[in-house]
Amino acid sequence: MSDTPTSGAGDAVAPFLLAIDHVGIAVPDLDEAIRFHCEVLGHRLAHEETNEAQGVREAMIAVGSPEPHGGNGTTMLQLLAPTGPESTIARFLDRNGPGLQQLAYRVSDIEAVSRLLRERGLRLLYDRPRTGTAGSRINFIHPKDAGGVLVELVEPAT
Amino acid sequence: MSDTPTSGAGDAVAPFLLAIDHVGIAVPDLDEAIRFHCEVLGHRLAHEETNEAQGVREAMIAVGSPEPHGGNGTTMLQLLAPTGPESTIARFLDRNGPGLQQLAYRVSDIEAVSRLLRERGLRLLYDRPRTGTAGSRINFIHPKDAGGVLVELVEPAT
Repeated sequence: MSDTPTSGAGDAVAPFLLAIDHVGIAVPDLDEAIRFHCEVLGHRLAHEETNEAQGVREAMIAVGSPEPHGGNGTTMLQLLAPTGPESTIARFLDRNGPGLQQLAYRVSDIEAVSRLLRERGLRLLYDRPRTGTAGSRINFIHPKDAGGVLVELVEPAT
Repeated sequence: MSDTPTSGAGDAVAPFLLAIDHVGIAVPDLDEAIRFHCEVLGHRLAHEETNEAQGVREAMIAVGSPEPHGGNGTTMLQLLAPTGPESTIARFLDRNGPGLQQLAYRVSDIEAVSRLLRERGLRLLYDRPRTGTAGSRINFIHPKDAGGVLVELVEPAT
């Protein structure tokens, strides 16, 4: 985060970063993590899928009452378990153990915001957006350009 | 997370866990981190304070439009910089480098939810709530009882 990004992109970038979409947690066992968050903490399982290309089994977990919020302001948890030993999540678990793994912003136009961020010197992990949860389009800001945080950009499917 | 917590607390706990209040990020330099989040990503500085008892200089950062959300559904970033080498955040930075450090739930009654969680076998770090950001009352679930995540419970000041 120190030197690379140039100041002053904020006014241009802000309209595209709508909210914190989710916080990703790396877990070794998805079913056990769903059980903990739903049965112990009382959250709700909102969505579950396997993304073979990303090497993850994942669950979106909703916190608190679904009303009156539920628009751009609502942040979910995303539980991420590896599909195999070569998965990014498997490597994260080997290196760090289970825990907070990523911070995702909901964006309105991933191509536009990617272009703006690149113009400001931030590196994105993919040349072009890839497919994320529930048909969304995603990319990531390199953690070295975002204060050590793996930042995901998520444009939801229309 | 594996064995300690007992299942079935969810229905009792859920009403007290209102939303994800904030995601905490450990940073070595608060001013630089504020600059990055506001000037590069276009977020807004909502609050800044030093909490000597917690050993942190901190800033609350709002993401996206303040309207029409801003109630229980809105999740902020909390940037956390150490006030000195003995600070919890200093030790976190030494061990992990900068990055995601905690996940905080906004709660409606920290005494009640603490009691429920303890009854289900989760360990909290403090015997009684302490003072957090902006006069809030806080406690933490031990990361070993929450899947490797340092979970903060925050009851906002009235």
